[in-house]
Amino acid sequence: MNTVKYIMESTETEAEGLIHRMGKTVRLHGAIYKIRRMSGFAFVLLRMRDAVVQCVYSEEYASFPLDLLTEEACVRLTAEVIAEERSKSGYELRLKEAQLLSTPCEVLPVVINQKRVNTSLENLLDYRPITLRNEKERAIFKIQAAICTAFREFLNAEHFTEIHSPKIAAIGAEGGANIFKLPYFGKEAYLAQSPQFYKQMMVGVFERVFEIAPVFRAEKHDTSRHLNEYTSVDFEMGYIESFEEIMAMESRMLYHCISYLNQYCNTELTLLGCTLPQIKEIPQIPFASAKKWIASAYHREITDMLDFEPEEERLLCELVKRENGSEFVFVTHYPSAKRPFYAMDNPSNTEETLSFDLLFRGLEITTGGQRIHSYNEQLEKLDKRGMHKELFESYLMLHKYGVPPHGGLGLGLERFTAQLLGFENVRSATLFPRDIHRLIP
Amino acid sequence: MNTVKYIMESTETEAEGLIHRMGKTVRLHGAIYKIRRMSGFAFVLLRMRDAVVQCVYSEEYASFPLDLLTEEACVRLTAEVIAEERSKSGYELRLKEAQLLSTPCEVLPVVINQKRVNTSLENLLDYRPITLRNEKERAIFKIQAAICTAFREFLNAEHFTEIHSPKIAAIGAEGGANIFKLPYFGKEAYLAQSPQFYKQMMVGVFERVFEIAPVFRAEKHDTSRHLNEYTSVDFEMGYIESFEEIMAMESRMLYHCISYLNQYCNTELTLLGCTLPQIKEIPQIPFASAKKWIASAYHREITDMLDFEPEEERLLCELVKRENGSEFVFVTHYPSAKRPFYAMDNPSNTEETLSFDLLFRGLEITTGGQRIHSYNEQLEKLDKRGMHKELFESYLMLHKYGVPPHGGLGLGLERFTAQLLGFENVRSATLFPRDIHRLIP
Repeated sequence: MNTVKYIMESTETEAEGLIHRMGKTVRLHGAIYKIRRMSGFAFVLLRMRDAVVQCVYSEEYASFPLDLLTEEACVRLTAEVIAEERSKSGYELRLKEAQLLSTPCEVLPVVINQKRVNTSLENLLDYRPITLRNEKERAIFKIQAAICTAFREFLNAEHFTEIHSPKIAAIGAEGGANIFKLPYFGKEAYLAQSPQFYKQMMVGVFERVFEIAPVFRAEKHDTSRHLNEYTSVDFEMGYIESFEEIMAMESRMLYHCISYLNQYCNTELTLLGCTLPQIKEIPQIPFASAKKWIASAYHREITDMLDFEPEEERLLCELVKRENGSEFVFVTHYPSAKRPFYAMDNPSNTEETLSFDLLFRGLEITTGGQRIHSYNEQLEKLDKRGMHKELFESYLMLHKYGVPPHGGLGLGLERFTAQLLGFENVRSATLFPRDIHRLIP
Repeated sequence: MNTVKYIMESTETEAEGLIHRMGKTVRLHGAIYKIRRMSGFAFVLLRMRDAVVQCVYSEEYASFPLDLLTEEACVRLTAEVIAEERSKSGYELRLKEAQLLSTPCEVLPVVINQKRVNTSLENLLDYRPITLRNEKERAIFKIQAAICTAFREFLNAEHFTEIHSPKIAAIGAEGGANIFKLPYFGKEAYLAQSPQFYKQMMVGVFERVFEIAPVFRAEKHDTSRHLNEYTSVDFEMGYIESFEEIMAMESRMLYHCISYLNQYCNTELTLLGCTLPQIKEIPQIPFASAKKWIASAYHREITDMLDFEPEEERLLCELVKRENGSEFVFVTHYPSAKRPFYAMDNPSNTEETLSFDLLFRGLEITTGGQRIHSYNEQLEKLDKRGMHKELFESYLMLHKYGVPPHGGLGLGLERFTAQLLGFENVRSATLFPRDIHRLIP
């Protein structure tokens, strides 16, 4: 019987290794990003896995006609690495041979090889499979991947165990009307709005758990900050003494993430002109105080004492930045009326919960808090809300059979990425967004 | 304004650190797993995050009555670490103080603190929030988490970029009737059967991508190896010269995973009595030859030349193990008729595809292969199958505007875990399984 040989990495060079190959002949592969015809020669930009590199084509050195190459053709190239002071990279690649692997059948409907894709967001998203090939567009998702890696690295080091909870469920965790329904073998099922119930169950098992996975919200909002499907970074931790421990854990997770991006995503951050925020100690302010502060600082009337208007979140961040220098702020003790049935009320004021949101550059990116762990307390709260405990039987096992004091949070990956990179619309940081109008691609 | 202090790790000890604290007084937390009353003293087993440890209660040392503790109560304890030769760990924990954090309201409906949970699979799954607290049950999912970490570690090192593709889609990638439908703002949408289209699109962007995420199959099969929702480990890689490179990549990924588990999951593997497979070079055999081999070796009639019966997969693994010693086998060149429309046919025999399955201990755990990258070739195949290209417009952008030769695979995380641990039913390695009967918990 034949066996599968462990074919090793090819002999082809990565862009970042080229500077060390001066004077050598190298093999490369990638897509032709752009061809700039000059008099007597041409610049050929090759989009490689890790960067776009500049090659020089001249009939003098090349064994193939320039016409072989077209934009978005995939090729293997042989080139000589020549020192060149005028080039930003310090070298240029003199093309010698080319092997064509595939060619596009049509000219691209959107120009993708300029500094940025100069089109509407609508177009950018409609043509995602090709607009993502733009250097800046793909840098966004390289950073997003790094954010996930950094979060997982941190959480693993903090003894959180990764879980995979089901997305098809018999009941929604977050309540409300924003839930997708689907027929499931003769029953009615729902798409998970969050892994809430499952991560709480798992606190009784592993003490600390996390999950990075899709969640689904059937919101009819058509705004720049809502998606109907997004990636939620969730963690839940047991044996806490105060809900502030959850905020402390998130602060350190974000601190680790920013350090990680500084270390590993310099190219992408530079390309996107992004300045990472400084995270020191993140300020915290109770919801009620924040409401009053905003009202007095901006001479606004408070119309809703139970929630923020989006404008108020923006103004609060402005105030905090001015006073404290921080681009993040924890708002704590949200009104019980606006928090889900599993949120723990503040024992000294049951109108509010031991909960928080994290605002970053004007937008909420995290919701978290301590959960009820006492069975009777949870039954009472369900009852007070007119909810039927029978519906939550398997969830309530965790309270009935003992669970430590615990809490956790959910962070929207796309929102966080968008705020980090200074985008106005969360869709810009979403690979293939789903909204009330968009189901394709 | 107050700021969130970076509260550091508590002063409480992890189980694995206890051996180094001999003679010291330590603080611990966890759930009371079991109380064994002896004459004049009691053994109290504490289920900590990383292990179950044995404490000794005696009125002589303890400042609290034993009755304070009940099984599944969550506690903080103070104890002295005393050398004890008769204990497997080399020490015992002499209890001094206890603080009760929560107590269960009822006696558990299933006994979870024996070596294994002695009940039906049905019960085990119905009471998941508590049966997972059993030491062996939770070890399964500790190993599953480690498998994911190992896969990601490998794929990141191999320059794969992690992506998050949408699970709500306008069209199914794998065809067939096994697809969940849901109403989506007046349109009909589907739950993704795989991230196939999206990972192929992203090959044009990042060259190599991966995703570990839920997929949904509305299969009506009620078997020990099918789930209606499972976690799929998907990768896709561009610039391949042969589909064997994909198998080579998977071989190395599995090799890395097994090494990782050997290094980090010893406790859990021992607890489960699991012997990890050796991975050297994995044998490969064409589908047609495998069919004939099984038929001749076991004197079976071949009834279906297009697919394996489950029994044949089992027998093939038996044969391979006997002949080659390998518990894995790649079966290659599956009939085109049984592979999806995006599979690349073998140029030298278009009845078969450049594809493979990986069988492990009698069961298919991976399906993969090379994909069509030529636009015209893809249009032809769609046409031949009577499929309408209009439905696949955004997917076909990738072929139309150029994509390198590429391929990839999907591995079922729960199936792989189940086979690794020697389970008969994939549900045993699924945290909260979804099947035709099961939607709760």
